[in-house]
Amino acid sequence: MENEGSAAAGKWRFAGNERLTLAGAVTVRGVLDTIKGNLNGNDARPVIPLGHGDPSDFPSFRTSSFAEDAVRAAVSSAKFNGYSSTIGIPAARSAVAEHLSKDLPYKLSPDDVFLTIGCTQALEAIVTVLARPGANLLLPSPGFPYYEARAGFSGLEVRHFDLIPEQDWEVDLASVEALADENTVAMVIINPGNPCGNVFKYEHLKKVVETARKLGILVISDEVYDHLTFGSNPFVPMGIFASITPIITVGSISKRWIVPGWRLGWIVTNDPDGILTKQGIVDSIKGFLNISSDPATFMQSNSDGSFSQVYERDAELEFPKESEQDEIEGAVPQILENTPPDFFQKIVSTLKETADICYERSKEIPCITCPSKPEGSMFVMMKLNLSLLEGINDDLDFCCKLAKEESVIVLPGFAVGRRNWLRVTFAIEPSSLDDGFLRIKAFCQRHAKKP
Amino acid sequence: MENEGSAAAGKWRFAGNERLTLAGAVTVRGVLDTIKGNLNGNDARPVIPLGHGDPSDFPSFRTSSFAEDAVRAAVSSAKFNGYSSTIGIPAARSAVAEHLSKDLPYKLSPDDVFLTIGCTQALEAIVTVLARPGANLLLPSPGFPYYEARAGFSGLEVRHFDLIPEQDWEVDLASVEALADENTVAMVIINPGNPCGNVFKYEHLKKVVETARKLGILVISDEVYDHLTFGSNPFVPMGIFASITPIITVGSISKRWIVPGWRLGWIVTNDPDGILTKQGIVDSIKGFLNISSDPATFMQSNSDGSFSQVYERDAELEFPKESEQDEIEGAVPQILENTPPDFFQKIVSTLKETADICYERSKEIPCITCPSKPEGSMFVMMKLNLSLLEGINDDLDFCCKLAKEESVIVLPGFAVGRRNWLRVTFAIEPSSLDDGFLRIKAFCQRHAKKP
Repeated sequence: MENEGSAAAGKWRFAGNERLTLAGAVTVRGVLDTIKGNLNGNDARPVIPLGHGDPSDFPSFRTSSFAEDAVRAAVSSAKFNGYSSTIGIPAARSAVAEHLSKDLPYKLSPDDVFLTIGCTQALEAIVTVLARPGANLLLPSPGFPYYEARAGFSGLEVRHFDLIPEQDWEVDLASVEALADENTVAMVIINPGNPCGNVFKYEHLKKVVETARKLGILVISDEVYDHLTFGSNPFVPMGIFASITPIITVGSISKRWIVPGWRLGWIVTNDPDGILTKQGIVDSIKGFLNISSDPATFMQSNSDGSFSQVYERDAELEFPKESEQDEIEGAVPQILENTPPDFFQKIVSTLKETADICYERSKEIPCITCPSKPEGSMFVMMKLNLSLLEGINDDLDFCCKLAKEESVIVLPGFAVGRRNWLRVTFAIEPSSLDDGFLRIKAFCQRHAKKP
Repeated sequence: MENEGSAAAGKWRFAGNERLTLAGAVTVRGVLDTIKGNLNGNDARPVIPLGHGDPSDFPSFRTSSFAEDAVRAAVSSAKFNGYSSTIGIPAARSAVAEHLSKDLPYKLSPDDVFLTIGCTQALEAIVTVLARPGANLLLPSPGFPYYEARAGFSGLEVRHFDLIPEQDWEVDLASVEALADENTVAMVIINPGNPCGNVFKYEHLKKVVETARKLGILVISDEVYDHLTFGSNPFVPMGIFASITPIITVGSISKRWIVPGWRLGWIVTNDPDGILTKQGIVDSIKGFLNISSDPATFMQSNSDGSFSQVYERDAELEFPKESEQDEIEGAVPQILENTPPDFFQKIVSTLKETADICYERSKEIPCITCPSKPEGSMFVMMKLNLSLLEGINDDLDFCCKLAKEESVIVLPGFAVGRRNWLRVTFAIEPSSLDDGFLRIKAFCQRHAKKP
């Protein structure tokens, strides 16, 4: 009888959170799953994946053995089995500050650095910190849909400003000013660009920052593809303009070291005038990290030899033990400071080669236009001319049929904010990329409108 | 002049999120930081830490070399550098399902398992999924304050039911029924207990589940200390009662393998009648994980040799490469299936020894009472009798002065919901624990009220 309360009558009092279910639906992965559903299992040819953002399994993109050694050594030391500090172990924060300061006219302090579980948690933190009823966030279009998904869950309104394909995907600053109102809190810049493969020029970035200053809004600079550049524009970190307006930079080791699964990223406050502290942003970031999980401790470090630091969360103190006197090295300082330069040169030169293949091959396909040659990141946007095709309704239809007929996976542009465009990844073995474009060409020829 | 907009006038439009700042303040760590602030730097003796929940740096609690080898091998394989699936790699989910099914009368499916970044992210997910305006969650008192912190941020009201010290910290079921109303969604049970060190009996757990069923609420069973038991009550997984009411179990490798910094935990749905799916809980968990970061991929696995699984987030597909044919083993299946039993025996026998020291030593101190001998986890609650002390106001004052005079760190009970109690950790080297209690005894003698 006891079991026949409200529950037995079918009245369970718990239910799922619809905002979570909905937020989860708006992802690159969800769209790619749909495309994959069209693959023809009878096609004996290998599938050519041009939709992903993670080339780590391709032989040309294997991470440095130096980085692998650094993680193995950290695990072997048994110094990194305990909880991390919630904002990151001090020596690892120092290493990130040192690393990023090399590109800046001033030195970042370790206190400016907050370690996160990949760049994903960095974005999650920033969006959560900025969300308040009625506030809005300006996002680039095309862009990276995680921002929209997380903002949607947090109740932060998003508004989209345009990147202009005819101007190397520069920001339409007039549209930024037109969109902003008194409830706008920040704008996001992704540089090098995902999905556009562009690299912003110094002068343009300065104008972006001056616009933000005029509007009184924060600039979030997503630099997860930093230094993956291979064109005429060098990578310019937004932090160099921090004296104009405060900048929050996010980044990680995921892309440059090709280890997205290692989950080590950062939030950096570039804030010489202490505005982010004054506005409560720094305390909110710390508060967020206090109630969130942390990157694996052995991915961080303890290179100053003081093991008590790894114990901050549960307030361990200095308990004497033999190994405390050892030279203790963790993974992050090793990886950031000592990875051999030829590793980066090889990755960048491979990306340059595949970006060239992409651009040149696209010229052979009449219904596809690439407005500018990619100069950074791992992606390029290509415009579809549907009027040259027969029986293809839109970008999604193009990608589904391409998967079915040619076993090539490409992301339809609507997933990143541009209908009837395609986002193509060139971080793949060069020979496979070549093969992929031959198949796309054959597909387009087969579906070409008869004159 | 462009820079003299609203910003130059001091009107920045962004601000921190006070709920985050406040949520971060309610932590064990924050309280322990306060206690630590009282340490006397001139005391030459080592600090004795009895406040932490992470013994990984003590020689007696070093993790198994087998576990270290498993992680190193996963890193060396370079098969786990890419993104994981957001809910966890299938082979790792299978390994967790197999592992937990050993204690259950039925077999869990891999689909019941969701991998998380330690148990912390598992709790975060559950609280976020259950939060809706007006809803409330029933929590044990004393308990683990992370639940309160996360619920506070998510806007989920919490209500506390009592654990009864005179009845081996069993749940006061009458108080559960009295607290619940039509907006109650779930109750939390921590077994083995943190902070009480108790292990619930089968019959009592069954009554808890029957009460939940009667109320139509979900049972969240926090089993992060599972199998760390050393008294007369064996560990009973709540999942065995899943046919009465749906159970969500959370756990991790953090405590049993003494690797909290490795950040690998899980949410498990024990739901033979599909109620959690029907109520939208499963979709919400997936939605949460879709917009959150993941555990490091090399902590997971891919033991079935199909490397395409590591690529689900960005929808990588099967790209042929030589190594695909290799036997690929990841860390989690190795760790869960093959850790030598003598590792666990050694840890449990050390905990039994230190729990005994704690209990016996406390009998020698008149102002401290330990209502029952700890039988599980790493903690015990001890009651302070302030009427026997002179010049000690409360538990916080006791702990601050103890730190200052004796360099011993103990957590005041208010931090876990019981004023004028202490939470003592016994997961520490036995000799240090002995030393710590000698110092606590000296402190109490010095502060004893004169007759």
